[in-house]
Amino acid sequence: MSDDPRALLEASDLQSLQDAALSFSDTCREVIKAAASRGVDVHVKPDQSLVTNADIAAERAFRERVEQDFPGMGVLGEEFGHTRADSAWQWVIDPVDGTADFAHGLPIWGSIIGLFFHGEPVAGVIDHPDLDMRVHAAFGLGAYRNGERLSLSDFDPALDHGKARIGIPSRSNFVKRSADGAVFDALASAYPDFRVFRSCLTHTYAATGQLDAALEWDVNLWDLAATQIVIEEAGGRYLRLRERMHPGTGMLYCAVFGRPALADRISALLAAQAGGPEAS
Amino acid sequence: MSDDPRALLEASDLQSLQDAALSFSDTCREVIKAAASRGVDVHVKPDQSLVTNADIAAERAFRERVEQDFPGMGVLGEEFGHTRADSAWQWVIDPVDGTADFAHGLPIWGSIIGLFFHGEPVAGVIDHPDLDMRVHAAFGLGAYRNGERLSLSDFDPALDHGKARIGIPSRSNFVKRSADGAVFDALASAYPDFRVFRSCLTHTYAATGQLDAALEWDVNLWDLAATQIVIEEAGGRYLRLRERMHPGTGMLYCAVFGRPALADRISALLAAQAGGPEAS
Repeated sequence: MSDDPRALLEASDLQSLQDAALSFSDTCREVIKAAASRGVDVHVKPDQSLVTNADIAAERAFRERVEQDFPGMGVLGEEFGHTRADSAWQWVIDPVDGTADFAHGLPIWGSIIGLFFHGEPVAGVIDHPDLDMRVHAAFGLGAYRNGERLSLSDFDPALDHGKARIGIPSRSNFVKRSADGAVFDALASAYPDFRVFRSCLTHTYAATGQLDAALEWDVNLWDLAATQIVIEEAGGRYLRLRERMHPGTGMLYCAVFGRPALADRISALLAAQAGGPEAS
Repeated sequence: MSDDPRALLEASDLQSLQDAALSFSDTCREVIKAAASRGVDVHVKPDQSLVTNADIAAERAFRERVEQDFPGMGVLGEEFGHTRADSAWQWVIDPVDGTADFAHGLPIWGSIIGLFFHGEPVAGVIDHPDLDMRVHAAFGLGAYRNGERLSLSDFDPALDHGKARIGIPSRSNFVKRSADGAVFDALASAYPDFRVFRSCLTHTYAATGQLDAALEWDVNLWDLAATQIVIEEAGGRYLRLRERMHPGTGMLYCAVFGRPALADRISALLAAQAGGPEAS
């Protein structure tokens, strides 16, 4: 553990950083709700993804708060790029993850904030304002859902695949920037009892145990900004499956997370899959 | 239209029946919330599906109300079978559709009530208590979401498949009682921007236009009890894809519904699919 830079951090500092992350999340929730109540304005970005006035207002408010409270720290966000990329401390935000559903009034979107120290996750918050649900965690301080401590039990390896409740991306994620359609098909066949929310709501449920595991495929760093710390502090396993540079988009990440034995099994299935992460 | 038995019904009677359906839905919501607040007790049924104390209490309360208000009418429910199956009037209920998610605390389940006259849908309610959202409709009286009239626009046939937001079942539905895995795979490939909620929440969103269409596969009559009337009264199209008797389960239904041109296209895709409804 001595080469984990987070071992250098004091518990009291971690507590303050977690409190800051929660307070920033409160700010985002307020700004998004206020913007939504005035009417959501949707724009299509060059990559065909959507952005709204709420995304932009929330990320701007978040950046102002970081600037005020932690002026030396970097910020990476979906809407306004990377500032102070050379800092040891990096805040990462996706103000509205699941923008299409947010714009359509489905309550399954989330607001993500993560803090990294020398690349390792230190604190994270995933907020679901329309469901009045929030999970958060900080290194060594545990993970919580609406203030209640989370503790994941393991998946019973004796259970067959069909018993696992997993959250997966839609097939879009596997074919938009890769030719990984066969990976989706293998996963859907092996674990047929899945939900697809197209947002970080599956991450939240993997942390609370309401789903047994979840998977992301070819997403940006900000989509996973809070996931590893929340899952690990809840007692779950977070496995990186693939990281690669995509021209014109940037780094794309694949990961699986949830109850440890199940995350391991899904990772093994994907590694064995022709056309899977090892092969691409 | 003269051979539609519903043409015999008076508007004032339809209004009363719709009001009764809404009142029955209120009763179910209250009973389920009360049961849930005392703690959800889950049992696995012989077919491996789940039932809880809330399902049972709600269906019982519903049956009592029908018995009191409409003593001659039949009732078909998931938990207590079929009473007065020979009546021209049949109430159909699935008190908790999405029981597994209800038991796990996900808010995406729904409570379904439908009324049929000589087999034709007359009134329907889909209630989502945890999302505080309800759609309802009655023949000729329109469809509503939380009291607001629904009116679906059509899907632009010039848009490609990738632009359609659809709700589909998980792959479980296609392989549990059929060998239709290839149908799921074809659908997921053709319409990659899908959500999977494993409940009637996709029906609700297909009626409101928050999804463009939705599909069900190998479900029971009660799972679709309110869907046709709500979709059609919202201006959408409801297409039956397959109805067949499954030994030990009963009749199983496949249907697609939503914006008319899109329901047509999905139906055509599935008809063309080897192993699809036409071939099975």
